[in-house]
Amino acid sequence: MRVFGIDCGTEFTGYGVVEMDSVAQRPKLVHCAAGTIRLSKKDKTPVRLAQVYRELVSLMTLHEPTVVAIEEVFFSSNAKSALKLGQVRGVAMLAAATCGLEVAEYAPLSIKSAVVGYGLAAKEQVQFMVTRLLELECAPESPDAADALAIAICHLHTAQTLMMQGAR
Amino acid sequence: MRVFGIDCGTEFTGYGVVEMDSVAQRPKLVHCAAGTIRLSKKDKTPVRLAQVYRELVSLMTLHEPTVVAIEEVFFSSNAKSALKLGQVRGVAMLAAATCGLEVAEYAPLSIKSAVVGYGLAAKEQVQFMVTRLLELECAPESPDAADALAIAICHLHTAQTLMMQGAR
Repeated sequence: MRVFGIDCGTEFTGYGVVEMDSVAQRPKLVHCAAGTIRLSKKDKTPVRLAQVYRELVSLMTLHEPTVVAIEEVFFSSNAKSALKLGQVRGVAMLAAATCGLEVAEYAPLSIKSAVVGYGLAAKEQVQFMVTRLLELECAPESPDAADALAIAICHLHTAQTLMMQGAR
Repeated sequence: MRVFGIDCGTEFTGYGVVEMDSVAQRPKLVHCAAGTIRLSKKDKTPVRLAQVYRELVSLMTLHEPTVVAIEEVFFSSNAKSALKLGQVRGVAMLAAATCGLEVAEYAPLSIKSAVVGYGLAAKEQVQFMVTRLLELECAPESPDAADALAIAICHLHTAQTLMMQGAR
């Protein structure tokens, strides 16, 4: 199973591709790719959305994941930011649909728990643990890429747990 | 000038196409098309977003508008709805970008003022005035289609005003 994780943002959208190597003696997480889609503030919104869509579709085509995972978002305060983030999120989900991929959503608490073992972990702890779990030589290029990898790892952990429960 | 107005919604997205006939003695609004894209609650979000995108792109291709107009959204309370609405809005703006069309945004107050002459007009007043301004035999098929037509009319009025100011 290869998971394409997306961390949506109005300026930076991170992506991270992780797979589970089940051929190894014990299942092992393998880092395939990660990066950041950077949007220019100068561009108008439709142009920015078209860029995110185009890049995500080509990355999904390139990496051939089996599923897409994104963060569920809950806001308590700013509805204007929620609307703007929703626009990017909509385009990301559309990219998955265009590539014929299912989308799994995870709450921030679940993602941090899966990676750090603690739902309220700081951003730095997530980066540190992602780097360690995937045995990377250095931290991912951006916090957004690290978050996207964490989302992908969360999905793999959940899938793994479900499979183990099924096997019992 | 032919305007493609969109009234985004998580369940119903209205569209309305209106053009300004400038050949007539005095400029006249002409109704070209209007309708509602209805999404099934049973479908998952990416499937629903893909439907909105696909239908909007094919409607834009069919009606060949010169510009797309949508409502600016301001929320004071519910951020969760804002995120969901943002997802549809993002896909609508992407559809415009895919068709090479610019997107103009108008505040609800401006739209109601342009159509009813009063920024805080009720939904029924908007429907009534849209029906009258476009000389339709009956009201548009849904409040969403009526709102989309109102958005298109608002853009044409604004463009008309700008042109008249430029001519002075």
